[in-house]
Amino acid sequence: MGDGDQGDRPVVSLSPSAEYTPLDPAELDALRDLGRRWPPAGSRRGDLPLDPALGRFSDRPTASRFNRFAQVRLFRAEAPGELAATERAGRPQSRLGRSLAAVRRVAVGPPLTSAAVVQERMRKLVALPILSSDLISSVAYGPEAMLTILVLAGTGALGLSLPIGAALVVLMLSVGISYRQTIAAYPHGAGSYIVASDNLGARYGLAAGVGLLLDYVLTVAVSVASGIAAVTSALPRLAPLTIPMALVVIAVLLAGNLRGVRASGKLFAAPTYGFLVAIGALLVVGLARAAGRGFTPVPAPHESAMAGIGAVLVLRAFASGATSMTGIEAVSNAVPVFHPPEWRQARTTLSWMIGILVTLFAGLVVFAHIEGVAPSAHETVLSQLARRAFPSGPWYYLVQIATAAILLLAANTSFNDFPRVLYFIARDGYAPRGFLRMGDRLAFRNGITTLAVAAALLVIVFRASTQALIPLYAVGVFLAFTLSQAGMVVHWRRHRTGRWRHSLAINAVGAALSGVVLVTAAATKFLSGAWVVVLAVPLMVLLGMRIRRHYDRVGAALSHRQPTEPAGESPERPDQVRHLYVVPVARLDRAALRTLAYVASLNQPAFAVHISPDDEEDERFRSQWQAWGDHLPLEIIVSPYRAIVPPLAHYLAALHSLRPDLTVTVLLPEVVVPPGWQRLLRTETPRRLRRALRDLPGVVVGSVPMHVTP
Amino acid sequence: MGDGDQGDRPVVSLSPSAEYTPLDPAELDALRDLGRRWPPAGSRRGDLPLDPALGRFSDRPTASRFNRFAQVRLFRAEAPGELAATERAGRPQSRLGRSLAAVRRVAVGPPLTSAAVVQERMRKLVALPILSSDLISSVAYGPEAMLTILVLAGTGALGLSLPIGAALVVLMLSVGISYRQTIAAYPHGAGSYIVASDNLGARYGLAAGVGLLLDYVLTVAVSVASGIAAVTSALPRLAPLTIPMALVVIAVLLAGNLRGVRASGKLFAAPTYGFLVAIGALLVVGLARAAGRGFTPVPAPHESAMAGIGAVLVLRAFASGATSMTGIEAVSNAVPVFHPPEWRQARTTLSWMIGILVTLFAGLVVFAHIEGVAPSAHETVLSQLARRAFPSGPWYYLVQIATAAILLLAANTSFNDFPRVLYFIARDGYAPRGFLRMGDRLAFRNGITTLAVAAALLVIVFRASTQALIPLYAVGVFLAFTLSQAGMVVHWRRHRTGRWRHSLAINAVGAALSGVVLVTAAATKFLSGAWVVVLAVPLMVLLGMRIRRHYDRVGAALSHRQPTEPAGESPERPDQVRHLYVVPVARLDRAALRTLAYVASLNQPAFAVHISPDDEEDERFRSQWQAWGDHLPLEIIVSPYRAIVPPLAHYLAALHSLRPDLTVTVLLPEVVVPPGWQRLLRTETPRRLRRALRDLPGVVVGSVPMHVTP
Repeated sequence: MGDGDQGDRPVVSLSPSAEYTPLDPAELDALRDLGRRWPPAGSRRGDLPLDPALGRFSDRPTASRFNRFAQVRLFRAEAPGELAATERAGRPQSRLGRSLAAVRRVAVGPPLTSAAVVQERMRKLVALPILSSDLISSVAYGPEAMLTILVLAGTGALGLSLPIGAALVVLMLSVGISYRQTIAAYPHGAGSYIVASDNLGARYGLAAGVGLLLDYVLTVAVSVASGIAAVTSALPRLAPLTIPMALVVIAVLLAGNLRGVRASGKLFAAPTYGFLVAIGALLVVGLARAAGRGFTPVPAPHESAMAGIGAVLVLRAFASGATSMTGIEAVSNAVPVFHPPEWRQARTTLSWMIGILVTLFAGLVVFAHIEGVAPSAHETVLSQLARRAFPSGPWYYLVQIATAAILLLAANTSFNDFPRVLYFIARDGYAPRGFLRMGDRLAFRNGITTLAVAAALLVIVFRASTQALIPLYAVGVFLAFTLSQAGMVVHWRRHRTGRWRHSLAINAVGAALSGVVLVTAAATKFLSGAWVVVLAVPLMVLLGMRIRRHYDRVGAALSHRQPTEPAGESPERPDQVRHLYVVPVARLDRAALRTLAYVASLNQPAFAVHISPDDEEDERFRSQWQAWGDHLPLEIIVSPYRAIVPPLAHYLAALHSLRPDLTVTVLLPEVVVPPGWQRLLRTETPRRLRRALRDLPGVVVGSVPMHVTP
Repeated sequence: MGDGDQGDRPVVSLSPSAEYTPLDPAELDALRDLGRRWPPAGSRRGDLPLDPALGRFSDRPTASRFNRFAQVRLFRAEAPGELAATERAGRPQSRLGRSLAAVRRVAVGPPLTSAAVVQERMRKLVALPILSSDLISSVAYGPEAMLTILVLAGTGALGLSLPIGAALVVLMLSVGISYRQTIAAYPHGAGSYIVASDNLGARYGLAAGVGLLLDYVLTVAVSVASGIAAVTSALPRLAPLTIPMALVVIAVLLAGNLRGVRASGKLFAAPTYGFLVAIGALLVVGLARAAGRGFTPVPAPHESAMAGIGAVLVLRAFASGATSMTGIEAVSNAVPVFHPPEWRQARTTLSWMIGILVTLFAGLVVFAHIEGVAPSAHETVLSQLARRAFPSGPWYYLVQIATAAILLLAANTSFNDFPRVLYFIARDGYAPRGFLRMGDRLAFRNGITTLAVAAALLVIVFRASTQALIPLYAVGVFLAFTLSQAGMVVHWRRHRTGRWRHSLAINAVGAALSGVVLVTAAATKFLSGAWVVVLAVPLMVLLGMRIRRHYDRVGAALSHRQPTEPAGESPERPDQVRHLYVVPVARLDRAALRTLAYVASLNQPAFAVHISPDDEEDERFRSQWQAWGDHLPLEIIVSPYRAIVPPLAHYLAALHSLRPDLTVTVLLPEVVVPPGWQRLLRTETPRRLRRALRDLPGVVVGSVPMHVTP
C-alpha cells in the first residue's frame, strides 16, 4: 500500500494552464510534416515595420500621442520574443469596464499571479477544523431530521431513535474505515469522482461526481437554512426574515470565495473547536442532570400519530438521520494538502473526525431521548436541548452562536469543494471548459458562481426550510460513497498488493452499507423530494457524456492528424490560398472609401457590392461610383423586397458555391461612435451581417472601422 | 393660392430609398477629386476569378455542391453589373430564422416589392370614411368627457353643457375654416409638422410633431378603451375583462397594420357610414320623442356636488369636451391622396366632415340635456341615450356595434398616421433613421410597433379607463393645431399672395382659439394627468435635437468635404496604406494554421501573438511553434494574472501608438459549430476581443472561421 502503483494516474493538482490542451506527440509530428510543406518563410522578424516586443526598429519619427508611453509601459520585455503583462494591462479599456473592475477590486481584492498557486500544506490540528466543519456540523440537523420522521407516528415512536441511532453509528464507523483504506490507496487524492472513474469507468465516475456536486449544492442550502434556524430559534422575531437572511449569507459566501481561499486555517479553527466545546459542555451538563434523576426519560409532549409505525417509516428515519454523515469525504479529497507522509496524516485526521462525529451524534440522540424533546416548527431540537441544559445565563446563546458559525463554515467548505470537483470533471471534458478557468484571484469564478446561484434557487424554492430540503439530501452523497467504495473493491481485485483480501472485504462492506442507505433514501423519500435527485443524476451524466462527445469531435476536427481537408474552408498552406475580396458598400462615404482603399492596397482580386431597394437608388449610386472614378468593379443587387442581410448572405454563398476553392473575404465599412446612448442610433446591419455570414465555410469576415466622436 | 410657390418644398411622398442619404453636389466634387488621386485601377472586372454577376469566367471545373444551383438561382441578371434578388433571396438562412419568417408570412402576408408603393388616389366619397373615422368617432367620448367634469359640481351643473357645447361648436367651425386655408396653401400635404417647421423653424415643427405623435398614441388608447366601454355597456358581464380585451384589440391592430394598408377603402366605408346612420337615427327618434312631450327636459338623477361651480370647472369641462375635435388634422395630412385637383377635393371633404361633426356633437349634447342623462361608471352616455331612444328591439345593440366599430377604425387610423409623421421627422434627422425603413410589406414596421407598445402601456397603466386617459389627451393635439395655424400666419405674412390679409386673419383666429384651448387644457388638467404631456413634449423635442446633432456630426465626419484626415485611422488612398497583420493564437491547431496560412499568403508583414498564463505554458507553446517550423515571428505575452482580452487589447493599442501610420489587422482563428446548445460550449474570447478592439482607431478586426460539425 502506498505510492508505488500511482505513477500512471494524473496528479491531482490545479493549474491555470489546464485550459490550454497540449498537442500530443502524434499531432506534433503531423504539425512538423505540415510545416515542412510550407513555402520558405515569408515574414521574418527583421521585416516587420516595428518590433513586436514594443521596442522600435523603425527610425522614422512618429506622431507623439498622448497615451503612447503609458500603453507601452504596461508590458515588460522578458526575453527575445517574450513580454510580460503587468497587472494594469489586465484592466479593461472602456470606462464602464474600468469602473466595474474597480468595484470588483474593492469587493474581491487585487489580482494574484499564477505563481501564487502554491498548495498550502497543513498539519493535523490545522486540517481538522478545516476539513471537519462540514461533517461535524451535520449533527446540527441530522438527529432532528430523524426525529421529524419518527414523530409522524406520534410521540410514542420517538423511542425508536435509540436503535436507529445505533445503526447509524455502525454505518458511520464502517464508512469511515472504508475511507481510511481509500486514502491509503490514493495518496494523491481520493475523491469519489477519481476513484470511481479510475476503477469503474467514466460513466460511473461521472455519476459519483454529479452526486457530489448535487450534495455540495444541498450542503450550502441545508447548512445556511439550518444556521439561520439556529439564529431564529434564539431570536424568534427574526423568523419572517428567514429567506432574505439566507440569501444574504449566500451572497457573502460568494463574495468571500471569489476573493480566494488564503488565510483560511485560522478562520476555521475557532468556530469548529468552539462548536465542539459547546456541544461537549451541553452533553456533559445535560447528562449530569439526567444522572441526578437516575436517567429517567422525561415523556415528550403528546402529539397524535399521523402515520403508523412500520418498516417504511423506520427506514425513512434512518435515511434522514444519515444526513449526519455528509461531509465525510472531505479528507479523502484533500490528501495532498497534508504534511508528508500525507496519507498517514490524513488517515489519522479522518479517524479523529469519525470519533468526534460518533460521540456527538450518539450523545445528542440519547440526550434528546432522555429529555423527551420532540421536533417543533419554531425551534430546532438542538436549541431545545441547549435551553434544557442551560436554562439561564449566556451559555444558551453561546451554543446557538457556535452552531450558526460552524454551519456557515460548512457551507463555505462546499464553496471550496464544488469548483474543485467541477474542475476535475471539466479537465476530463465532461463539463464546459469554462470551469477550468482560474479568475484573477486564482479562484474558480464560474464554479463558485454556479454553486451560489443553484443554492440560492434551492433556498427560494424550498423557502429556506431544512426539513423540506432534507429529502433531497443524502441521495447524492451516498451515491458517491457507494460508487467510490465499489471502485475500491475493483481496485483491490486488480492490484492484489499487501493484505488486499482484508481491504477488499472492508470496502465491500462499506459499499454494501452505503448502497443500502442510497436505495433506502431514494425509495422512501422519493415522493417527498428525492425524485429530483434521482432524475437529475442520470440527466446530468447524459449531458456530461454529450459535452465530452462535443469536445472529442471538435478536438478531432482540429487535430493535425485528421487526414482530409474540410470542404470549402480556407486552405492550410499559404500557396494554396486564392483570394477574392468583397466590400459591401451602403453609401459611398469616407468610411466606405477607407475600406475600398484597404482592399485595393492588398493587390488581390476585389469588387464592391451595393444593395439597393429600387432602381432609382441603384442609378444614383452608380453615378456616384462613376464620379469617384470606378476604381473597382461594382455589382449592384436590387433587392425589391428591401431585405439587406439575407440577399447579401445568399449572394456570398452563391459566390462560394461557384468557386469553393476561393477564400472570400468580406470587409465591412463600420462607423464606430463612442459607447453610450448614441450607439443605439447606429445601424445593426454590420452585426447582423457578421452573424449571417458566420456559418458560411471559406468566408472570412472583417470590418474596417472609422471612429466618429459626435 | 395654389401650387405656384411650392417648388422648393419637399414633396410629401414616402420612398423606400429615403434611408439612403444621397451625396450632395459639393461632396460629389470632392469625391471626384479624391478618385483622381487614386493610383490606376488595380482590379478590373476581367481580373476577377469569377463573374460577380454569378456567371463564370473561369473555365476551371469546380466541385459540384448540393446547393449550388439553388443559390445561384436566387438572383436574376438584369444588366451588366446588376442583379435582382428574388423574394426567396430575402429569406434568412438559419433554420430558426426560416421558421420565424414562415410564421411571419402567415401572420402578415408575403413580401411586397418596392414598385408596389403607388399612392392610391381617392374620390371624396371614399376618402370621407377613411379620413373622418378618427374625428367623427370622437363624439363617442367627447360629450361624455365634458359631462363627467360638470357632474362634479352636482347634477345641477349639467345644464352648463349647452353653453359650453355652443362654444365648442364655434371652436370647431373656426379651426375647420383655418384648416381649409392650410390645405389650399400646402397642396402637397399640410401636416402640422411640415407647416410649423416650414414657417416657424425646426424646433417648433418638432414640438408640433411630438404633440401629434403623443396624440396618436392617446387616440389608440382612448379609442380602444372607449370601444371596449361601448361593448361592456351593452354586455356588463364582460367588464372584468376590459384590460385583456383592450390588449387583444391592440395586438390585432398591430398585426393588421404590419400586413400593410391595402384594400382599406371598402373596409372603412361600412362602419363609418353605419355610425352616421346609427347616431342620426338615434337623434331623430330621440328628438321626435322629446318633441312629443314638448321638449321638457327630464331631470337627471340627483348626485351631490363634489366641487363648486366656478370658472376652473367650466374651463376644464370645455377642455375635456374639446377632445371631440381630435382627428380634425387627418385631411390636411392626406391632401396628395385625392384625385386632382387635390386641394379642392380635400377642402370640400374637410367641410363635410366639420359639418357632420358639428351636427352630431350638438345633437348629442342637446339630447343628453333633454333626457337628463348623467355620466355613470358602468355605462357610457351614448349607451344611455341609445337605450332611451330604442328601449326595445335590436336597434340599441346596432348603435353599440356601430360605435365600437368606428372607434376601432379610429385607432387604426392612428396606426397609419403615427409612422408617417415619424417618417417625416426621421427623414429630417430628428428621430432614429430606423423609422425610415419600410419592412417587406412596405409598412413602417418600427413605427407601427412603437405605437402599439406605447398604447398598450397606457392601457395597462390607466387600466383601460377612458375617463383617466382624457386629461392626457387634447394637450398634444391642440399644441399641433396652434403651431400649425401660427405657422400659417407667418406663411401669409411672407408670401402675401391673393387675399392674404383675409386668410391671415382666419388663421390668426384659429391659432388664438387653439392656443386658448391648449393653455386651458394644460392648466386645468395639469394635476390630473396633463403634466405627463407637458413634461414629455419638451423632453422629446430635446431628444430629437440631440439625435439630429448626432446625425449631423456623423454626417460631417463621413463627408468627403471634411478637410482633415482623422488621426490614426486607416488611410483613404491605397498607396498610403502600410499593413501589419497580427494573429492571436491560443492553440496551434488546424483553425490557427488556416489563419496563419491566410495571413502568410498576403505577403504583408505579419506576426503571431500568444497569451500564456504562466511560463510552463509559454515554453510548451514555443516548442510547438518551433516544431511547426517557425514560419512567422512569434511574440508571447505572459499574462500572470490570466487575463486574455485586456492585455491583448492593450498590446495592440501599444503597437498602434508606436506606429500610428500602420493599419494593424487582427485576424482571429474562430471555430464555428452549428447553432444550438453546443454553441454555449465555445469560448467567448473572439467576441469579447472584437468588442474590446472596436474602439481602437486604425485596427481592422476579422476572423477566419473553421466550421466543425460535432
